[in-house]
Amino acid sequence: MLGSTHGTLTTDFRARVEACGETPRAAVHCTAPASAGDAAPLDVSGRPLHSDVPDLDRLFRPESVAVVGASDTEGRPAAGITRRLVDWAGRVGARIHPVHPARSAVYGLPCHPSVGALPEQVDLAVLLVADPLPVIEELAEAKVKFAVAFASGFAETGAEGAAAQDRLAAAVRRSGLRLLGPNTNLNAFEEFRGDLEGPAIALITQSGHQGRPVYALQELGIRLSHWAPTGNEADLETADFLSYFAERPEVGAIAAYVEGLKDGRSFLLAADRAARNKVPVVAVKVGRTEAGARTAASHTGKLTGADDVVDAAMRQFGVIRVDGLDELQDTAALLARAKPPTADGVAVYSISGGTGAHFADLAAAAGLHLPTLPQARQDELHQWIPPYLSTANPIDSGGHPVGDERGRKIIDAILADPSVGVLVCPITGPFPPLSDRLVRDLVDAAEHTDKPVCVVWGSPVGTEDAYRTTLLGSSRVATFRTFGNCITAVRAYLDHHRFTARYRSPFADAPRTPSPSYRKAQALMRPGEQLSEHAAKQLLRAYGIRVPREQLVTSAAAAVRAAGLVGYPVVMKASGPQLAHKTELGLVKIGLTSASQVRDAYRELTDIARYEGAPLDGILVCQMVQRGVEMVVGVTRDELFGPTVTVGLGGVLVEVLHDAAVRVPPFGEDQARAMLAELRGRALLDGVRGAPPADTDALVEVVLRVQRMAMELDGVLSELDVNPLMVLPRGQGAVALDALAVCR
Amino acid sequence: MLGSTHGTLTTDFRARVEACGETPRAAVHCTAPASAGDAAPLDVSGRPLHSDVPDLDRLFRPESVAVVGASDTEGRPAAGITRRLVDWAGRVGARIHPVHPARSAVYGLPCHPSVGALPEQVDLAVLLVADPLPVIEELAEAKVKFAVAFASGFAETGAEGAAAQDRLAAAVRRSGLRLLGPNTNLNAFEEFRGDLEGPAIALITQSGHQGRPVYALQELGIRLSHWAPTGNEADLETADFLSYFAERPEVGAIAAYVEGLKDGRSFLLAADRAARNKVPVVAVKVGRTEAGARTAASHTGKLTGADDVVDAAMRQFGVIRVDGLDELQDTAALLARAKPPTADGVAVYSISGGTGAHFADLAAAAGLHLPTLPQARQDELHQWIPPYLSTANPIDSGGHPVGDERGRKIIDAILADPSVGVLVCPITGPFPPLSDRLVRDLVDAAEHTDKPVCVVWGSPVGTEDAYRTTLLGSSRVATFRTFGNCITAVRAYLDHHRFTARYRSPFADAPRTPSPSYRKAQALMRPGEQLSEHAAKQLLRAYGIRVPREQLVTSAAAAVRAAGLVGYPVVMKASGPQLAHKTELGLVKIGLTSASQVRDAYRELTDIARYEGAPLDGILVCQMVQRGVEMVVGVTRDELFGPTVTVGLGGVLVEVLHDAAVRVPPFGEDQARAMLAELRGRALLDGVRGAPPADTDALVEVVLRVQRMAMELDGVLSELDVNPLMVLPRGQGAVALDALAVCR
Repeated sequence: MLGSTHGTLTTDFRARVEACGETPRAAVHCTAPASAGDAAPLDVSGRPLHSDVPDLDRLFRPESVAVVGASDTEGRPAAGITRRLVDWAGRVGARIHPVHPARSAVYGLPCHPSVGALPEQVDLAVLLVADPLPVIEELAEAKVKFAVAFASGFAETGAEGAAAQDRLAAAVRRSGLRLLGPNTNLNAFEEFRGDLEGPAIALITQSGHQGRPVYALQELGIRLSHWAPTGNEADLETADFLSYFAERPEVGAIAAYVEGLKDGRSFLLAADRAARNKVPVVAVKVGRTEAGARTAASHTGKLTGADDVVDAAMRQFGVIRVDGLDELQDTAALLARAKPPTADGVAVYSISGGTGAHFADLAAAAGLHLPTLPQARQDELHQWIPPYLSTANPIDSGGHPVGDERGRKIIDAILADPSVGVLVCPITGPFPPLSDRLVRDLVDAAEHTDKPVCVVWGSPVGTEDAYRTTLLGSSRVATFRTFGNCITAVRAYLDHHRFTARYRSPFADAPRTPSPSYRKAQALMRPGEQLSEHAAKQLLRAYGIRVPREQLVTSAAAAVRAAGLVGYPVVMKASGPQLAHKTELGLVKIGLTSASQVRDAYRELTDIARYEGAPLDGILVCQMVQRGVEMVVGVTRDELFGPTVTVGLGGVLVEVLHDAAVRVPPFGEDQARAMLAELRGRALLDGVRGAPPADTDALVEVVLRVQRMAMELDGVLSELDVNPLMVLPRGQGAVALDALAVCR
Repeated sequence: MLGSTHGTLTTDFRARVEACGETPRAAVHCTAPASAGDAAPLDVSGRPLHSDVPDLDRLFRPESVAVVGASDTEGRPAAGITRRLVDWAGRVGARIHPVHPARSAVYGLPCHPSVGALPEQVDLAVLLVADPLPVIEELAEAKVKFAVAFASGFAETGAEGAAAQDRLAAAVRRSGLRLLGPNTNLNAFEEFRGDLEGPAIALITQSGHQGRPVYALQELGIRLSHWAPTGNEADLETADFLSYFAERPEVGAIAAYVEGLKDGRSFLLAADRAARNKVPVVAVKVGRTEAGARTAASHTGKLTGADDVVDAAMRQFGVIRVDGLDELQDTAALLARAKPPTADGVAVYSISGGTGAHFADLAAAAGLHLPTLPQARQDELHQWIPPYLSTANPIDSGGHPVGDERGRKIIDAILADPSVGVLVCPITGPFPPLSDRLVRDLVDAAEHTDKPVCVVWGSPVGTEDAYRTTLLGSSRVATFRTFGNCITAVRAYLDHHRFTARYRSPFADAPRTPSPSYRKAQALMRPGEQLSEHAAKQLLRAYGIRVPREQLVTSAAAAVRAAGLVGYPVVMKASGPQLAHKTELGLVKIGLTSASQVRDAYRELTDIARYEGAPLDGILVCQMVQRGVEMVVGVTRDELFGPTVTVGLGGVLVEVLHDAAVRVPPFGEDQARAMLAELRGRALLDGVRGAPPADTDALVEVVLRVQRMAMELDGVLSELDVNPLMVLPRGQGAVALDALAVCR
């Protein structure tokens, strides 16, 4: 079911696609631009396969700005905002035009009664009025490109506000301008330091306050290029900024704080663009728990998708999800500035064996690879490190040499090793005579390598000169305050480059037209109903998924005949349109080996069904399939992303441990295989207790066919559950022993 | 198998107990003191049930100190250390006596040729000599109480060093003095600020550098009372300092950095003392991974126990284990200073809805309880908070009121609510006009409540005045830099008080003498051998654990007679001293319902056994037990802690997911129940798919009986595996269907 504020996804998509066709904005920086007037291509489920990159240059760097509702009456919020805009314009050299019907000047600037009366066409209108809706048409007439709406009281306040926001969104769509907000602020026009070097972080936040720590990174010497405070996203949404930033050459990484996503597909298309462009996206996404999700929804008035689906979708497209704003800062800062790795090995250099051991322990637990340095490299290091200390990795100098060049030589030798992709030096306690030289050596060494040099400054004080001046003064060294954040960032860095190196957009291969199976399938669908097991299995057969030989019979005699045809031993099951949990009800009989057993079973099954009041369309007589690994594969609808595909281990594992993996279509074979790798009980597929390895190729094929069903049948299928899917030993395939399908 | 440097645990315990008896030190601060000369009581496994608290007052606060090997030759390490000791003595008013055979004065102080020649009996000798061993006897003669040995080159360097360390330890044991080190430093004689208020943190570290961040907390206004750098622990070990600190009135929490534990039992006894005294112990224990463990072992030359056993042992005794030094600092600081909670509810007050939602999401995911405030409280808060903002919890003021007393009233009203035990105010972005007043209000409010007031100062900069002066200047507000660390600390705080409120020392109830079962069991043991299934089951029976009716037979005719006696259907299994994995070998036949089936099965089983070359002591004819939940219960030996008891879910769950919980004896019924709660598949015990709930009382009883076996049979049993233990529906008990026992 879809939330009332959003309409159906398909309608929403179409509306957006049409809106795109009508607007005059050009698709800039676009890797595969759709020319104006073309509808974006759609996949077979009706979802777009491409999104344009909005040209937001003049939103972030406007040359002329109208301030609608400007004020200089002290104490009024509008006056504070006007003042800050005037100051900002002074800094960046933009022209400010106050607009107010009742004022002739604001802060000494001539004030005009309306946007239409301004002496020039402006790039941006900042709307300080309580209701921005009536202004939109006027802005359109004046050919204003962008508006920022401060007003609150929209979707974040409940149903009435949501309706007002829908009206505003519709007006904006008609107008041709692009709107930031409502319920946003001036974050986009903060001061961005121009003196900082290197690739920058671009920031997207739905809550201004939550972006403050990332913005403050500039005080630690880390460059920030943009800040998009998206507010209620009546028009421009997180995905638009993701796409735009993913095309900006100065952006090294995108950091996002997301409470709710406006539209699943547009987010995925934007993330896909970032993945293709190899631009890392690091995101906090609120909604780990129901409590958090509830609060988030009431805050932004947007849908929060089920968290495991969001999590999976982010992983599919390489978005790095972190929990804390501190991790967001540290991870984005490393990824923005570090060059691609030349090896996946992490070397740990420390001045204390304990520190090295502790860091190595946590790093290994997080899955980082700490290669043992080759003996020749260890011998080289032992020129400067006493023989009783370890140079294997972690490398323990016992105290960095300060009197000469030995310390620098140690660092250079570690960095020179081909197995080393990242150097980490954890310094838990500053001891200036030693650590001052150590950090200078690290900063110098970082200037002469493309490998990331990470330092953990573990002192909780943080006012030390070596930290404030030497470390933060370097744009080459990545400085952390905790082991944990350093490890999170280094792992994200290595994962990101591994991911993008292999990444291929699933949108390129997504089906656009229905397969021949579609027609067969359509004939089986019964709108609003749950199909019988027999019909559901025919649906699977239509998509080439193997089911057991079976016959639907309505008499004991026919059952015996059918058993002869499918071959003994047989399984018999009641089949009816509303039947679920057949095993618990005693409506399944297995291992029947004779005509008399079949006759008895027929009577017993029909008796139980009568007793339970379950209408039957007959009794299924099925081939008994040899033992394999029981799996479940299914389709569920997610409010945000539409149909999703789940695979899990059957039986007790899925029931007790919910051991399942989910993906959002479209995805390829690599992701289908990754789903299996995510299962905690995956060893079952490799064979345990002497069982042969299961046919995982066949299982992957079933997952991909179920994905095809999920996409093609999106309009008519609300739920599908293949349970169990018996995966036979390698080379022997997989058979759907039971299926449940609910039509929309 | 036990490491060669430690001998058997029992020998080691005895030696230590005897050593205690011989030494003249009094047991001070001891809640249950053993008078000098008494041996400590032992449990049935021969491990002590009590440890004395060493009186370390004069180690930490010596009035007179001999510096053996003192120097003032610039550039010599000994000169640096001597200089620091002289400075320290000047600060604290202690007397320093340099000792050196070839010097007459050091830094202007008269130097004596030996400790025996000193003008007074000293409390402490600091040994700067390369080999401390020859000095020990001289110190003992001079009745020196404590020595600190700096020399390295002992167990941390390998087998030869370990032997030297053993010789040193033996000499110390004979001498009657207590030794800190070797391979330690001056951390105990750092400067401790006397101007800080409130309960203090006492610090224990095996690596000096790793203690630096906790020590530096003093610069953030957090009081530190002691620092014990334990080094190689030839004599005084982590446990001694734990016990000592747990009895000091000024100590609010103990923070420990542990690489390896010297002795499992002494650590548990010390942790037990801390738990009884309600003194929180927060510890980093290296060894999460094999890589970390390896490095740790090479660094300290001590055993690192299997990490899951260490983890369980810590939890049993309430030790709070954290991963990072930053978590160690933040958690210890909160626990040291916060009074016991009056409620388990956490209230989140923020000036931004996004911040509140984000914090609430992470807090709920970590298991914290965020109660919805009662309507009356919400109404009260709405006097000062606009109606459209949420006061349910998180409480969003939309911006703390700064012009009057409203802000303080909001904070006080939240703190006044009985459902609130902890208040957290996350401030991600400082905005001085607002946040300066907010933090002042928080600091003031904290002065008037016993409930912890936690502030997260999320700015990465950390030089802001509100943070440095106002927040860090308060001994009442707990200040954090990240959401994550605040949540970790608050959870530890609530958990600690919940734990200690219910804590009862398991040592009080631990068995001291063998049960009547012991004699029966002993007769069954075969040193060095694996018992047959039949014998292993008799062992279980001796301890009152139910096994199926069964008979061991050696002919087909006897099998048929036995089947008649145990009752059809029966199970038949090959039984022999070296048989394991019987099911995989086809050596188990189930569901036999007739004499002819029994005869056939007898022939088949003996044929297979002959083919496999497995010697049999016969064929077991067993009662077939109805279906229940299959569990495993077992005993394994841990190098550090001795026998441990494990319980897990049987079948695929334990095999594929290793879903098991472990405990170190002695433990009570509460811990046996907690083991079940730890199992990921615990829902199976509650009944799934229509199955009845299992008899968990019977399961708990089996776990406790197996614990009794583990303790009593410690000397003769090396391994026990009850697999499967069939736990029947509630009220029907549990039956051990198979068992494997290996004698020592």
